[in-house]
Amino acid sequence: MNRQRHIKLLVGAPSVASDIRYASGFNAVDPVVYLERGHTRILIVPTMECGRARRQSRRGVNVLTPSALKLGRGERGRISSWILAALERLKARSVLVAPGFPLGIANRLRRAGVRMIVAKEALFPNRAVKTPREIRNISETQRAAASAMQAAVRMIQSARIAKSGHLVAAGERLTAEAVRRVIDRTLLEHECSAEETIVACGRDAADPHEHGEGALRAGETIVIDIFPRSRTHGYWGDITRTVIRGKAPEQLRQMYRAVAAAQAAALLKLKAGVTVGAVHGAVQSVFEKRGFVTQLRNDRPEGFIHSTGHGVGLDIHESPSIRPGQERLKAGQVVTIEPGLYYPKIGGVRIEDTVLVTRTGFRYLARCGKRFEV
Amino acid sequence: MNRQRHIKLLVGAPSVASDIRYASGFNAVDPVVYLERGHTRILIVPTMECGRARRQSRRGVNVLTPSALKLGRGERGRISSWILAALERLKARSVLVAPGFPLGIANRLRRAGVRMIVAKEALFPNRAVKTPREIRNISETQRAAASAMQAAVRMIQSARIAKSGHLVAAGERLTAEAVRRVIDRTLLEHECSAEETIVACGRDAADPHEHGEGALRAGETIVIDIFPRSRTHGYWGDITRTVIRGKAPEQLRQMYRAVAAAQAAALLKLKAGVTVGAVHGAVQSVFEKRGFVTQLRNDRPEGFIHSTGHGVGLDIHESPSIRPGQERLKAGQVVTIEPGLYYPKIGGVRIEDTVLVTRTGFRYLARCGKRFEV
Repeated sequence: MNRQRHIKLLVGAPSVASDIRYASGFNAVDPVVYLERGHTRILIVPTMECGRARRQSRRGVNVLTPSALKLGRGERGRISSWILAALERLKARSVLVAPGFPLGIANRLRRAGVRMIVAKEALFPNRAVKTPREIRNISETQRAAASAMQAAVRMIQSARIAKSGHLVAAGERLTAEAVRRVIDRTLLEHECSAEETIVACGRDAADPHEHGEGALRAGETIVIDIFPRSRTHGYWGDITRTVIRGKAPEQLRQMYRAVAAAQAAALLKLKAGVTVGAVHGAVQSVFEKRGFVTQLRNDRPEGFIHSTGHGVGLDIHESPSIRPGQERLKAGQVVTIEPGLYYPKIGGVRIEDTVLVTRTGFRYLARCGKRFEV
Repeated sequence: MNRQRHIKLLVGAPSVASDIRYASGFNAVDPVVYLERGHTRILIVPTMECGRARRQSRRGVNVLTPSALKLGRGERGRISSWILAALERLKARSVLVAPGFPLGIANRLRRAGVRMIVAKEALFPNRAVKTPREIRNISETQRAAASAMQAAVRMIQSARIAKSGHLVAAGERLTAEAVRRVIDRTLLEHECSAEETIVACGRDAADPHEHGEGALRAGETIVIDIFPRSRTHGYWGDITRTVIRGKAPEQLRQMYRAVAAAQAAALLKLKAGVTVGAVHGAVQSVFEKRGFVTQLRNDRPEGFIHSTGHGVGLDIHESPSIRPGQERLKAGQVVTIEPGLYYPKIGGVRIEDTVLVTRTGFRYLARCGKRFEV
């Protein structure tokens, strides 16, 4: 099958449908349509968005509106009508779409005689390999994330330990919420924002998706995971540190050392041409050698229970995924390396950096110290 | 067709697929599956999310994982396999889905013999009518939005007017970005955040979707549109004010008065039983009587170029839409009333409040003064 014969068709709000933002350069929170065949690139937006779309779109993108497509009043609000009018202009009856394409629109296009082909691979595979400009953008967000991390760690570090074991700052119990507020304020200063920041202490930290709430305590791990998006260019960053206020119990210290060693081993493996499975395997092997078992206990998983990392760009989770598999890394890919260990009765530890894959190894996109006991 | 015979099937990340968050009570940024038939409600989440899902879900929701569904290793990562296993348990071969359901999964289910029916109406029509708890949540976010608006207006009001006409605060030119930062900080204090806040001055204000940037000037309208989401419960608020620093030119003053009168006329019409078209018509009629023409000029629309309002809840834009149509409003719906006028050569004005529709009229969800010249 020669893909060039098909038209790539995308529908969605560019703010979440990142392929459209990537291909067109345009960002909006309302749905738009994007079509591409060779050098022909068409973006269809509501009439109200037309001016902004023309200013923001990449060179060579032809911005159209329902009225420019000569649609009647009744059809102007129907996205399937926008698409059919554009396909008629292009004299095309067959389109290539992503698996997430909306079924309702697909059914209407099919009834009008359009052949719908669901792509088995990414519509824009080049998105995984970043341009210098994209690397600058991700680095900018990553630096904002690192600043926010430093502010958070300083806050925990300077807290007093009460007799009860709680942390106290400015006369009040230091909470996950208060640390998150400092993170949010720092990110705002860098024109970034993060919706799902994790500041998880003790048992919360043992669940990798728990955001964490309430009082922070000494002697328990605090996992801080910050993944902001830039409000200006839309590129993400991603960083995690685990700290403990005061002296770490021996079990947690061993866990931390294992995770740090696993991250170092994965980073050492990282370079263009290596398989994602080899990088993931480096992490697994460190944990196995040190006796950290991954298993289900009472129907709950414990140990190293997620993948080693993921690509970062206009989406926070994008290609490549660093887990068992034969896919080979390429120079210019930006990925996280984030091993972690989680034991519900002990706590959790995760360390994560976002790095650029190069021909010979990797490069950190932002520096941020790693200290466990603070 | 008796819908009760079909199973409602939803797939997506609850953070954006609000029907799933609404029905299950669970929030996550990764995709989950939700099925409902009568009182049987099933939520399928990745094993890693299981603990959090059980804690957060509504009573009566049965939380399952791929391993609980006895899926083999190769199938655990395939959402279509999760669904097929659940349908087998329920002995069902036919599902009702929303038009946005992903085509790739639909194709796989069809190949396995599942009948896919695309719903013509909302899967959860009751979502448009809010419970007392939902009204409290939206009010909370709306109060945060109103506080942020007051902070923004105070900042503009206290700015000095330079000879050049630019606004100056703390010795520097006051910019849209600086006002947005004050808005963001105020929202954060209320555990809310807003990604697309509009602070648009002069020509920017004439484009209703332009976010605005750079220096703010006296004698030009500044449209401030704040629509934050609560980070705790996920409900949105929405408010717009238009202000001018210094004395307003006569044309802009007339526009402001017309928009204020149009909003008052729409609010006066608002109550349970009235059609959305009647409310929209009230706005149109004020503008027509005052000679504000809506038309395309140089392929660009000007005048009153959007609908009168929209529902607000777990989505910022949800049912009902207040525009030409026969749909009747119901008590308990929460809607915006936001007429506006936009003339590229003059500027833009919009005033918006989020209100509760009642049996006898409406109720503001938050109070926020309306002053034009500040």
